[in-house]
Order: sequence, then C-alpha cells, then structure tokens
Amino acid sequence: MLSEFDIIKQYFTRDITAYPEIIQGIGDDAAIWQQKDSTLVASVDTFLEGKHFFPDCAPEDIAYKALAVNLSDFAAMGAIPRWFTLALTLPEAKPDWLESFSNSLFTLAKQYDLILLGGDTTQGPLSITIQLMGTIDKNKILLRNSAKVGDQIYVSGTLGDAGLALQYLQKKIILSDQIAQAVLPKLHRPQAQVELGLALAGHAHAAIDISDGLAQDLGHILTASHKGADIDLEKLPLSESLTSALVRKDAESLALTAGDDYQLCFTIPQNDPLITQLSKSYQLTLIGEITEKPGLRIHQHGELYTPPIPGWQHFN
Amino acid sequence: MLSEFDIIKQYFTRDITAYPEIIQGIGDDAAIWQQKDSTLVASVDTFLEGKHFFPDCAPEDIAYKALAVNLSDFAAMGAIPRWFTLALTLPEAKPDWLESFSNSLFTLAKQYDLILLGGDTTQGPLSITIQLMGTIDKNKILLRNSAKVGDQIYVSGTLGDAGLALQYLQKKIILSDQIAQAVLPKLHRPQAQVELGLALAGHAHAAIDISDGLAQDLGHILTASHKGADIDLEKLPLSESLTSALVRKDAESLALTAGDDYQLCFTIPQNDPLITQLSKSYQLTLIGEITEKPGLRIHQHGELYTPPIPGWQHFN
Repeated sequence: MLSEFDIIKQYFTRDITAYPEIIQGIGDDAAIWQQKDSTLVASVDTFLEGKHFFPDCAPEDIAYKALAVNLSDFAAMGAIPRWFTLALTLPEAKPDWLESFSNSLFTLAKQYDLILLGGDTTQGPLSITIQLMGTIDKNKILLRNSAKVGDQIYVSGTLGDAGLALQYLQKKIILSDQIAQAVLPKLHRPQAQVELGLALAGHAHAAIDISDGLAQDLGHILTASHKGADIDLEKLPLSESLTSALVRKDAESLALTAGDDYQLCFTIPQNDPLITQLSKSYQLTLIGEITEKPGLRIHQHGELYTPPIPGWQHFN
Repeated sequence: MLSEFDIIKQYFTRDITAYPEIIQGIGDDAAIWQQKDSTLVASVDTFLEGKHFFPDCAPEDIAYKALAVNLSDFAAMGAIPRWFTLALTLPEAKPDWLESFSNSLFTLAKQYDLILLGGDTTQGPLSITIQLMGTIDKNKILLRNSAKVGDQIYVSGTLGDAGLALQYLQKKIILSDQIAQAVLPKLHRPQAQVELGLALAGHAHAAIDISDGLAQDLGHILTASHKGADIDLEKLPLSESLTSALVRKDAESLALTAGDDYQLCFTIPQNDPLITQLSKSYQLTLIGEITEKPGLRIHQHGELYTPPIPGWQHFN
C-alpha cells in the first residue's frame, strides 16, 4: 500500500527548477513563492469524517480544528495567515449544524484577522478542505531542511495529551471526568502556535508542527536536513493529566508517537537568548541536539530506546 | 432544503467592508484581492464521485475536468492562472489510477504553465478539490455585477453538447457512435476559455462561465447587475451533433438549461470592434441585450418562452 508520502513523491512531484519564484514547493508544511514584492504562503488540509474526526463530533469543534491545523502549518513556517477558502462537502444542509460550524469558524478566523475569500459547497460525505494563504518575511522562513549540527531541539507545550483524549474517545482507556475535561480540548481545539512561530522566525533553523507524533515529525526535519539527532525520553514535556492517567512508560510512548498536539518542534543554535525571553510566555523544553550522524536516537536512562512504532528502525 | 446559494449567503457571508484590499469576495467566479503591488485571484472547486462524475469515469478525464472547471472560473474573470493546490481523497492508492490521473493533470497544467504548489492526500470517498490561484489586471476585471443597459449578450462556442453527452451516459437517450464520440469530450474535457476571457478583459462589462446552464448563469449576471435581458431562443448556438440528435425544441431546451459547457456568456457595449476581431478565432454568437427592466425574457418566434426549469418564473 502506497503511503501519503509515496503518492506525493511518485505521482505529484515535478521538477520546478525552471520556476525560481517557487521558494518552497511540495514537501514542507506550506508552499512559499514570490509574486512581485510579496512572498506568499499557502497550505491546504482536508478534514474528513471518520478519518480525522468522529461522526458525532460537534460542528463547532470540526470547524475549529479544520482551520487550526492549517494555522499550525503556518506556525511551523513562521508565516502570517491572512486569507482562506473553504470547500465544504455536506451530506445534508442542517441549519443548526451550519450555524454552529460557521460561527465557530469565523470566531477563530477573527482571532487572526483572517478573511474568508470564497469556497465551494457540495452534497456528499462530510469533508472540509481549507486552504490558508498568507505572507512571510522571505529572509525568516522556518523550513524543515535547515537544521544544523549542534542545534538544540525544543518542543513547545506538552506532548501526548491529544493522543490520550483520542484513546479515551476510542474507549481504549478510562479517564476521570477531570482528566477527560482537561485533555479533550487538546484534541478538539488545538492551539496553533502562530505567534511562537513568528517569534522564532529568523532565530530557529528548522521547525515543524507535531501532527503525526514527535518521532515521525522530528524525523521529517532530520531527513530533509540530512542530519541526525539524540533526544532524551525523560525530557519530553508531559502534562499532569497525562502522567496521572498513565504509567510513565505509556505516557512517554504517547508523547513520542501520538499526533494531533500541534505543538512546534524546532532546532535553534545553542544558547540563543531568544529562548530565555520566550520562556516567559511559552513552555519550551529542550529535548535533544542535532548531530552529523544520521538517524533519530532516543535515549532512556542512558540506553537506546525503541519507540513502539511499526517499522521503526534506528538508522545509525 | 437549503440550496448552495442559501448556504453561502446565510452562513458564510460576512461583512468585509473593513477590508478594502478585498476587490471581490464571495459571490463571483473567483475571489480577487490586492496584496501590495499584486492583484491576486483564487477559485476553488470540489469534484466528487457520483455527483460530478460517474464512478467509472477515466482518471485522466477526472483530473482534466477538475482543473478545467477552475480554469473556466478564471476565464470568466479575465484572470491569468499561475499556481494551484490539490486536495485528493482516494478510497485506495492504485498506481495505475494515480499514474493516469497525475499525468493528465500535469499535461493540462503545462498548457497554462501552471505550478502545483502543494496539497493534501487523504483516504476516503473519491473527491478532488483544486484551488487555482493567479493574477489579474485590476483595471480589467470581468465581474458579474457590471452589465449595463444596452449591452449586447454573447456566448462562445455551442451550448448543450455536454448536456447531450450526460443524457447519453445516463441512458436517457441513444446516440449514434459518431455523435457520441463528438459530444463526450465536451462533457469530459471542457475547454476553458482562458484566452478569450483575457481578450475580453477591458472590453466586456460582465462575464460568467456557463456551468449550470445559460438561463441560470445569465440569471446570475442579471441579479448581480440589477438588470434584465431579452434573449432569442432561435439565436442560441447549437452544434450539428445536437441538432441531428434531438428535435429542435429539445435541443434548444438543453442549450438553455444544461450545464457543463464551460463556455463564456458576456455582455459588451454595442458594436465593439473587438467582436469582429475575435470572431476570426472564436465562435461568438449574439443572443440578446441587457435591459433596465429586470428579469430574463426568452423570446421564441415573437412569443415569450418558458424554459423547462423547476421553479422558473418571469420576473416582469
């Protein structure tokens, strides 16, 4: 079975060297190109019932997250979101559903002063495709391919909370009401780190948003940058909800492999004073370092740790 | 049941007067906005199996049309297509299908020197959402709302051929092989009138592409422009395929109400010499005139004709 990455690489990647205005094409969190004196950015994400959200998910949460995941792509580039389009496929037009969905969408859009430019409405299985567009300072782009040897690797916020909420909804685990109420918003209403991304732009070398789990997403930075990394499992930032709900081992495993947290993972030169400054407003955790030697090595109490990911291999 | 237009109007239209950079928001063929010294254009269309194409439709035709309908939106604005994104939802990743789909997509893209900037791939019911972006001369935009009293109304090409092909595929009619082979490409591979749109820009007052049938699409121009029109049924351009397959009455009915032709309907001041010049390269047919009196009046042999559209009413 072809993966998403295989499909894109094999069928939809063409040589674009003849188009020097394309600063970043397929292969990062968003595309970037130069149009006269503007550097433009676009990202697109499809959000599908049964795949990205449960059939009983509240319309206000669906709308919020469909836009938030695109905002998170922008955060990971250091880009400013400005405009978006909406392609909405609906099984039926229920006024209550549409009212909740559209109000939630516009409430989040307003927070970022985003404008809905247009869209398309179709009758069919529930699916939301949002394309976000905006601008970026072309001298301060956060790409996946720019990690440097010796960079410190940071993550924002805590990891694994959305994964915990997902396991709860899938009835794989039982949570107290208090913990469930604490982690469900992490899954349904991820806070895109747009301001953090903009603050890091010009300082961090590489960045990605954690949508598929830290191990996989940091892996994208390493592959694109042709570098490796050592990270410490004990350093991963875990919430109190996560550590009280799960034994340490399972909590760390979720933090490493669960997606949907939409925090940022970035690499930055050692001792950049920006980190101290940003740490007043953001939870930023140093988890490891970029190495010349390829592969992602996860350390636990001095031993090499193998994450519970099917097909995982140490590349060293 | 809410129509697409109701949904957009009631739930997704917000006051954008605070954003003077938005030249055209929701409500035309594409959105147009000013970003520094660039005037940017975007349109988005979802193309869904079972709704916009039959389950056995060839992947090369699906790809072609999914991009062509967006190109047609650009034609109707007088815009230059430049970049696009693709959100592709697939039930399964079949290499043969992907090969045919992507080759056809890039072949059409190359004709217009379009660049695929990025996209998203998801597993689910077959659906293609393409967002096309580009630029436009801000002094030469073809809007729906700018028809003037006395303008002549023209359509390009012939009308009803795609509708005939659709009836054939739906087994509502039988066609000779020769006629079927002539009209099926009109349905599967509509030729977006991008060059014609660019040639009309700065001359025509209003334009729309005919995706939902002439009566409905010209109706959008009239509503947006607060004008009316008189058109002559006998003047509608019908192909030889259409008139040999159907009796005159049914052929005219299809030409008026069937969609998918993706020809342009535009209004232009009387006797603009551009028409004579363009008629050397394009089939352009004068079908009527814009009036102060609202409503679309269709004349047939001097009588008022009522098209076979559910809910159709003369507004005069």
